[in-house]
Amino acid sequence: MHVSPDAALAAVLEAITPVDRALAATGQAHLDNLTKPQGSLGRLEELALQLYLVQGGAKPQADPCRVYTVAGDHGVVAEGVSLFPQEVTRQMVANFVTGGAGINVLARTVGAELFVVDAGCLGGGFDAHPNLIQGKVAPGTANLAVGPAMTREQCVAALLLGVDLADRAQAAGVRVLGTGDMGIGNTTPSTALYCAYLGLDPADMTGPGTGLDKSGVDRKAGVIRRGLAANASAVRSASGPNGALAILAALGGLEIACLAGLILGGAKNRQLVCVDGFISTAACVAAWKLAPATADYTVLAHASAEPGHSLALKKMGKAPLLDLGLRLGEGTGAAIAMFLLRSAAAIYNDMASFASAGVSAAAE
Amino acid sequence: MHVSPDAALAAVLEAITPVDRALAATGQAHLDNLTKPQGSLGRLEELALQLYLVQGGAKPQADPCRVYTVAGDHGVVAEGVSLFPQEVTRQMVANFVTGGAGINVLARTVGAELFVVDAGCLGGGFDAHPNLIQGKVAPGTANLAVGPAMTREQCVAALLLGVDLADRAQAAGVRVLGTGDMGIGNTTPSTALYCAYLGLDPADMTGPGTGLDKSGVDRKAGVIRRGLAANASAVRSASGPNGALAILAALGGLEIACLAGLILGGAKNRQLVCVDGFISTAACVAAWKLAPATADYTVLAHASAEPGHSLALKKMGKAPLLDLGLRLGEGTGAAIAMFLLRSAAAIYNDMASFASAGVSAAAE
Repeated sequence: MHVSPDAALAAVLEAITPVDRALAATGQAHLDNLTKPQGSLGRLEELALQLYLVQGGAKPQADPCRVYTVAGDHGVVAEGVSLFPQEVTRQMVANFVTGGAGINVLARTVGAELFVVDAGCLGGGFDAHPNLIQGKVAPGTANLAVGPAMTREQCVAALLLGVDLADRAQAAGVRVLGTGDMGIGNTTPSTALYCAYLGLDPADMTGPGTGLDKSGVDRKAGVIRRGLAANASAVRSASGPNGALAILAALGGLEIACLAGLILGGAKNRQLVCVDGFISTAACVAAWKLAPATADYTVLAHASAEPGHSLALKKMGKAPLLDLGLRLGEGTGAAIAMFLLRSAAAIYNDMASFASAGVSAAAE
Repeated sequence: MHVSPDAALAAVLEAITPVDRALAATGQAHLDNLTKPQGSLGRLEELALQLYLVQGGAKPQADPCRVYTVAGDHGVVAEGVSLFPQEVTRQMVANFVTGGAGINVLARTVGAELFVVDAGCLGGGFDAHPNLIQGKVAPGTANLAVGPAMTREQCVAALLLGVDLADRAQAAGVRVLGTGDMGIGNTTPSTALYCAYLGLDPADMTGPGTGLDKSGVDRKAGVIRRGLAANASAVRSASGPNGALAILAALGGLEIACLAGLILGGAKNRQLVCVDGFISTAACVAAWKLAPATADYTVLAHASAEPGHSLALKKMGKAPLLDLGLRLGEGTGAAIAMFLLRSAAAIYNDMASFASAGVSAAAE
């Protein structure tokens, strides 16, 4: 039976349901009985409980874990919003495939699988490689400063590509997903998405990306303002999934939409999704708007050095796990956060209880 | 030839010299040539450069890494400063030895060796175990609220025990040390040390430790104030190593002095020392005061949830790597930070350069 892309996406959104909070008391009681003052492992305990809830009350598992680093190009680069030439997107895909990029090193260090995904690079296909998924929806987006970056169809296709990535991981037993991005110019669409979804101002949200100076940042903010105006009907569109989709198509990118789909797919599959920095968090906002229960399945890995990120996180009501001044993307912050998830699961599963260790509890 | 403890300590302090900052330009140039925007890996790049400097310009290595969790008891517990009964110190040593405590789980997760050290637990020796070092200097300290916690001789012995721990690790090829503590009541001496060394006020610095309520915190602050008064001659003692030693003996603890010695020994051996939270940072302040160049060899792993820690870190001019709401001690934050050090070393050693990967650099 043929299912239309719209129907397939609707089925994914419908399959995303909140975790069962009734399980929390049992999980918390287990944590409180381990040989430590209650709550003294802070966010590790929160992560352990989140994994427990995401996994439906089983012993929390953070492995295997897998990062998808998704690449795409952006028509808005024509406006001079990046210091790096656009061919770097393709060059970095090659670097990911041969294992020399930051995310390769960090994924190896944490023991995460890494797959590279062409969701929308300029040019044709890449040479085949077992770690490369060739899912090109289109060879880059249109210039969002003058009109929609993607058609609705392209955006849905990129979302479903991301869902498929989550499903492939699910078939391989993966419990934790990490999101990564590569796309010269992609802080511009991400900033535009934050402004449109969260009602933030380009003047506050626009930052240097890979290294613009003050005048470059001002020009970039102007480009984003023009993009919001050129796509005003999408930005003003009704709320709910259709409005969220219209904004994502108008102002997003192919890798960003794919990452939003990966996050949705993870939530559907009851996988925990470790969301990387500025670009991935924009994809996360899109996913939350498309299906609010997705929030239960996401962890915001780190505070990006891109200044608008902290404003966006504040609007989202989420505190990031790490604050290491990272601004590379690729999934680097997500990979590091996977170590915290593994630590949290190990704490839950492997610590002794007061009774089993013969340790006296605190006075009441 | 017999060397007196005082002479041995003086030799350690003299052997601690600053890193050679002339090497920094070479290390930074290497980092800047890797396939990422300059500085985009934030604190990982800082850690890589620190390892590079500590190791004298060799390819930075973060492994093998080893945590020492050092235990001691405190006479000041007689003042009712902890919710947990004092026998928990010994019970937790047994828990460390059998592998069920938080630090066991996290050391295993990060792949660090773990040794438990009795520097000053109440009672006699423990049953022998290959992971337990029986270095008891004394069966607990005296009550610092009424006089010196340790004699000068005990304090020097505990410092030299810590130096010996660093030397044992050095003999085993360990590149990164982690500090951990266990001692019921030991936020009280630690707080007293911060006040004495850094000129902070007990009213601002005293916190709940393992869970005191407001009236308990107020009582504890009063105990610390009495301790500072009872040891006023030490607190007012001349600056320099002798003054630092007098304060440590008067207000510290046997595990705290041992950890200060571990930090000094690490600096002497050009090992990087990952300093855990509230208790270990107090030991770190003591080590810095005894030999200021020690600072080049230390990383402050995390911001403790104990509220005074952030004030102390601010006075020290150091930003912690992690802020995960931990307040367990034992070395748990240090163990997690070891993963960041390993990641930093891998970034330095394993990433491709722009030239080797054929990636275009940014426009100037």
